[in-house]
Amino acid sequence: MDPTKTKIPPMMDLTIDNITENTVLINSQSGDQRLTYVMERLVTHLHDFARETRLSTSEWMAALDFLVKVGQISSSVRHEFILLSDILGLSLLVDAIDHPKPPSSTEGSVLGPFHTHDPPTIGNGSSMASDPQGEPCLVICTIKDVQGNAIEDVKIDIWETDSTGHYDVQYENRQAPDGRCVMKSDKEGGFWFKAIVPVPYPIPHDGPVGDLLKLLHRHPWRPAHMHFMFEKSGWDNLITAVYIRNDPYESSDAVFGVKKSLVVDFTPADAETAKQYGVKEGTKVLKHDFVLVSAKDTEKLRDENALKALKELGLRVKLIDHLPVPDLD
Amino acid sequence: MDPTKTKIPPMMDLTIDNITENTVLINSQSGDQRLTYVMERLVTHLHDFARETRLSTSEWMAALDFLVKVGQISSSVRHEFILLSDILGLSLLVDAIDHPKPPSSTEGSVLGPFHTHDPPTIGNGSSMASDPQGEPCLVICTIKDVQGNAIEDVKIDIWETDSTGHYDVQYENRQAPDGRCVMKSDKEGGFWFKAIVPVPYPIPHDGPVGDLLKLLHRHPWRPAHMHFMFEKSGWDNLITAVYIRNDPYESSDAVFGVKKSLVVDFTPADAETAKQYGVKEGTKVLKHDFVLVSAKDTEKLRDENALKALKELGLRVKLIDHLPVPDLD
Repeated sequence: MDPTKTKIPPMMDLTIDNITENTVLINSQSGDQRLTYVMERLVTHLHDFARETRLSTSEWMAALDFLVKVGQISSSVRHEFILLSDILGLSLLVDAIDHPKPPSSTEGSVLGPFHTHDPPTIGNGSSMASDPQGEPCLVICTIKDVQGNAIEDVKIDIWETDSTGHYDVQYENRQAPDGRCVMKSDKEGGFWFKAIVPVPYPIPHDGPVGDLLKLLHRHPWRPAHMHFMFEKSGWDNLITAVYIRNDPYESSDAVFGVKKSLVVDFTPADAETAKQYGVKEGTKVLKHDFVLVSAKDTEKLRDENALKALKELGLRVKLIDHLPVPDLD
Repeated sequence: MDPTKTKIPPMMDLTIDNITENTVLINSQSGDQRLTYVMERLVTHLHDFARETRLSTSEWMAALDFLVKVGQISSSVRHEFILLSDILGLSLLVDAIDHPKPPSSTEGSVLGPFHTHDPPTIGNGSSMASDPQGEPCLVICTIKDVQGNAIEDVKIDIWETDSTGHYDVQYENRQAPDGRCVMKSDKEGGFWFKAIVPVPYPIPHDGPVGDLLKLLHRHPWRPAHMHFMFEKSGWDNLITAVYIRNDPYESSDAVFGVKKSLVVDFTPADAETAKQYGVKEGTKVLKHDFVLVSAKDTEKLRDENALKALKELGLRVKLIDHLPVPDLD
């Protein structure tokens, strides 16, 4: 609806049947078409949820108390609402909507709650992990575009747990970043570093999200993986991860992140590789090529996907700033 | 679906189109049919919301950060998620679903976030407010059933703001409850007390819910009202409020609580009333009769309404413990 023409009717005697329409109307006065649309869909789904479940007062109260707990356990190093979004499949869904990938590019995966902004920048050959209990590995990568051209100077965030399955930020006495780094791709689009072989680990389950998983008889485990995030102006931000083949949780990831194209092998270094990269023969080696998509191509694909999907849903919308708003014309 | 027969398929390569079905399946293993149903509707609506808005990563992140703030400003005396539920119309909706009222009974209204469990029990004629700036008033009530029979020994919670529009719990230096009390109805179903004439006030808008209202160009005001909650075994818990007629916010309550049947007049005491109740002539007097519904009748009406509404929605459900679950037979 056109907010400038929105007439807010006197609101009294609201009932199960007219509360939604009235709430939508009163939320439509800002003049921000996107906000109006998002709020309209939010309120409609929230109310439909209550109507379809005939939500009881005690269930409603339990849900609100649960949400307070999710907020209160969150901190600068723990975002329990991201975790909640992860286990409900919302994170993966939003990534799939916002970062569509053409067939020849690297697929995305979940960001998770453990990315930080303080890791050191390291050069090729350095190690990003200090855990002596971890099994050393060597990671050799390239970054290319869909035509196979090297992309240099990409900022790469890499993070993984230690050998016990904990990120540095999960330790109270964390002094400095560990198990994480930032790198830049070289002229050939390459970057390589030393790390430890990832291990499976449970997502933090000592909080409300863990309680919910238990209630649902779900395990909290993620298969062994290493996170990567790629950023360069002109290129679509790629948040992804690689997963070790044959992990026991490969097909039951608590946060739905695994894709076949992201499952990789760590293979023992032969003599030549060992010599070239200065590691012991037999060291586990991961070789992986990442493929980025230009921001322009992503935007085009995102718009096309949006218009197609919204048409199939029967919604009369148009895109403004690449995001849907109601089409009133 | 029957959880004992639920086969969780290997979950990999989840996409915009199959993530919902897979998330629903993995949430269906608890054996608790109600939990399975509620989670199924929750995940479906959450995902549909993201698909219909083509929610962007930055909008998703802003929403999760907002929810963290809502949790973190909450405390033992401030429940910002109740407030959020209130301004989105969810609280009123849940009350309407859970506490259906036959025509001759008192309608419900929103509980709000300011009820506490520590008020003193007072007898007829006592005052529940100490604010010398407030305009004194006298409140004379009865509690009856739908046939007009008095109901004695009902526990009544009553609460209101002071003359500045603040509840006692909104003061950091709160020493003891003020502007709130608990009473018991006498043999005639009566109870009467002294208070101050309620004033309109803004809901707390110094937090994230206030920020959202501002973004939506909505005012945070509630019309002047006094809260009442009635509890007695065998009777449906009644959460309601009375609203003073002709309040400037009467038809734009920020939390959608006003009902015509709950709008009341405060009229000056005549000489006889003043003498009888020990107040000055001209003191504002509210006379109001509340009508409770038996728990049994409410349960019956709730079940009937649920089955009718769910049938109209085309949902194949049955009631277990008076709450819908999928009907698989």
